[in-house]
Amino acid sequence: MNVAIMSIGDELMNGFTIDTNSSWIAKRILEYQSLDVVSKITVKDDPVDIKNNLDGLIKNKVDYIFITGGLGPTHDDITKKVLSDYFNVDLVLNSSYYSRLKLFFKDKNIKKSSNLKSQAQILENSVPIPNRYGTALGMKIKHKESIIFVLPGVPKEVKGMFEEGISSLYLSPNFKKEKKYITLLTTGIYESKLFDMLKDIIKQNIDDFSVSFLPKYTGVNIRLSKKESSACLEDFKNNIIGKVGKYVYGFDNQNMENIIADKLFSNQLTIAVAESCTGGYISKKLTDISGSSLYFKGSIIAYGNSIKEYFLDVPNELLSSYGAVSSEVAVKMAESIRRKFKSDIGVSTTGISGPDGGSEDKPVGLIYIAVSMKNETIVKKYNLIPYRKEHRNVASHTALNMVRLLIK
Amino acid sequence: MNVAIMSIGDELMNGFTIDTNSSWIAKRILEYQSLDVVSKITVKDDPVDIKNNLDGLIKNKVDYIFITGGLGPTHDDITKKVLSDYFNVDLVLNSSYYSRLKLFFKDKNIKKSSNLKSQAQILENSVPIPNRYGTALGMKIKHKESIIFVLPGVPKEVKGMFEEGISSLYLSPNFKKEKKYITLLTTGIYESKLFDMLKDIIKQNIDDFSVSFLPKYTGVNIRLSKKESSACLEDFKNNIIGKVGKYVYGFDNQNMENIIADKLFSNQLTIAVAESCTGGYISKKLTDISGSSLYFKGSIIAYGNSIKEYFLDVPNELLSSYGAVSSEVAVKMAESIRRKFKSDIGVSTTGISGPDGGSEDKPVGLIYIAVSMKNETIVKKYNLIPYRKEHRNVASHTALNMVRLLIK
Repeated sequence: MNVAIMSIGDELMNGFTIDTNSSWIAKRILEYQSLDVVSKITVKDDPVDIKNNLDGLIKNKVDYIFITGGLGPTHDDITKKVLSDYFNVDLVLNSSYYSRLKLFFKDKNIKKSSNLKSQAQILENSVPIPNRYGTALGMKIKHKESIIFVLPGVPKEVKGMFEEGISSLYLSPNFKKEKKYITLLTTGIYESKLFDMLKDIIKQNIDDFSVSFLPKYTGVNIRLSKKESSACLEDFKNNIIGKVGKYVYGFDNQNMENIIADKLFSNQLTIAVAESCTGGYISKKLTDISGSSLYFKGSIIAYGNSIKEYFLDVPNELLSSYGAVSSEVAVKMAESIRRKFKSDIGVSTTGISGPDGGSEDKPVGLIYIAVSMKNETIVKKYNLIPYRKEHRNVASHTALNMVRLLIK
Repeated sequence: MNVAIMSIGDELMNGFTIDTNSSWIAKRILEYQSLDVVSKITVKDDPVDIKNNLDGLIKNKVDYIFITGGLGPTHDDITKKVLSDYFNVDLVLNSSYYSRLKLFFKDKNIKKSSNLKSQAQILENSVPIPNRYGTALGMKIKHKESIIFVLPGVPKEVKGMFEEGISSLYLSPNFKKEKKYITLLTTGIYESKLFDMLKDIIKQNIDDFSVSFLPKYTGVNIRLSKKESSACLEDFKNNIIGKVGKYVYGFDNQNMENIIADKLFSNQLTIAVAESCTGGYISKKLTDISGSSLYFKGSIIAYGNSIKEYFLDVPNELLSSYGAVSSEVAVKMAESIRRKFKSDIGVSTTGISGPDGGSEDKPVGLIYIAVSMKNETIVKKYNLIPYRKEHRNVASHTALNMVRLLIK
């Protein structure tokens, strides 16, 4: 069955807002055996454009059409009005939902806005899709051979409404797919190098599997997809791991933070961080995970040399003879934070994220990362991408990967 | 003149990757007087789909077509091959670019991959668009009434190649627009409330200006667009500010971090942070800005109570009688970090980001934020969105906004 996703909004067309909803929905649809996303389009807040595009999808007999955006309370939110015109059906108030909305605003002590009522209106004969994450009520419309889901544009609302009001109710659990995709997360190796290592195996299995390489600055994801075939995806995955396993740190929806969290938790280890150039990014990543207080003790962000000296006990002589960006200082930082915060692991970074501060000896991109554990402290020097934003992200990712490899 | 953006990639269609390129290009195109984005489509790595969609755009006489994606070194990168078929033109090696690539890999001591050559190939008679940020060479193709720019899919490469190899060369500077858009960044107020305050003024000016509300968890952006009219956008902006100015913290491409950076720098003030629930997020935001070492001293991330006690001098009695999440502890944290790190401003957060740790008295979402300056310490209690990821982001944003208001 075919699925189309139509994202409505001037702000999407002119680029003021990045459309994450269509990707999220598409990725979720992948999990259903018999559903296939065939169209993803962006449409302006324009009645004619919206009607024409919707009409095209309905004429093409697309089974499920997801419409997001334009359900808000302001004058530029026109989706419901346009659908009411297109289907020639009135908008009616869903009174139970409206009561809940009023109650919510009363509880929060917010003066009710005059256009709150519009948020609880849907097309007559449509089925409401409740919204626990915002104010706009969604709806399901059946028309000719298509089922149309109409959702707001706020990502959190789309996700919540899809999970609670669409997937289990309408996209029958029978659709659940056998696993046809596996993604291997790699880091520390170039895409072209990976491809070189894998091209023979890819060629040998070309009838059964397709392999895609998705490069990001923090690493390359390798996605394995099974074609219409009886071959075993798990076997193919193990084959691939046989070749490039040392670069693989996780699978599918995992990320470095979650993997580190699991490792620290299951090994009952605690961690503390001394950050210079990463400026809090490692700590932020570690605490993104709920329950991180079980293993994360805290950090000292030592941006200036005086903080390194007085709060991380880095001797002034070390700073003046080797410079703040040096393996000696990184080691001292990691050992000090571990000792001071009484953690099992201490991690430190000191480097030059740029754009300024580089020299011939110590160019932008240079970083020293140290990890201190009970019996050893390891320090590594990297020349990472010399752009500030990416440098800080890759540096934090690399530091966590060093921790991962050491716990292993 | 019309512009279309075609993003190629299975990973975009199935949602594994979010398409940020089309938004970025669209936003950049907005700056040109006579260019208008009329189409944004996502296409699979499928020769027929790519050809059909391109053919449609060329038949519709779209003036500029931007194609991104599928230029990489691996077997699933088929864009060049498909274009070569479609235009019936051979791929040829651009030898000067190939020499540069080889040199780059030699410099980096990376074993040259066997398929590097393909990265330097473009269509015969096309004009090369160099890529300083990655390996794939781009190209400009003239066909019938359309000019087609072909770029890789990596966002950093798209941006660099657009700025260095397309905008000034081909999208003549004459196109530069008079300013037709202003975005006001607001925080601390609901969208529906803002709309209530502005609906009369919007109605009165409906012939000259359109107004869009773009809600995010950290605030609502209000975008003012001038229609075909001789009215003054600046006057209209000032009118709007007259109504809702106290919620406006910036304009257009500014963000809270940049605004704080400017304020701290121009007032020659330094800052230090004591973070509990935000776990490094505030420090990360502050150091996202290059040159932040001029005003950012450092932070202590005090996740556990013992760190609050021993490194931020929060008395144990305070922690046990009021709890770690309390205004008393927030004040002490802000004052201690300011004194210890010898900064002009100390900021602190202590709260419950969830999903666990909430109680009836202190629910998930609760946070105390304190800002300490020379003559005063201010502390505020907020009940923010009770979802971990958003809570941490909104909390960090709110803390920086408190700093902004105090410096002002």
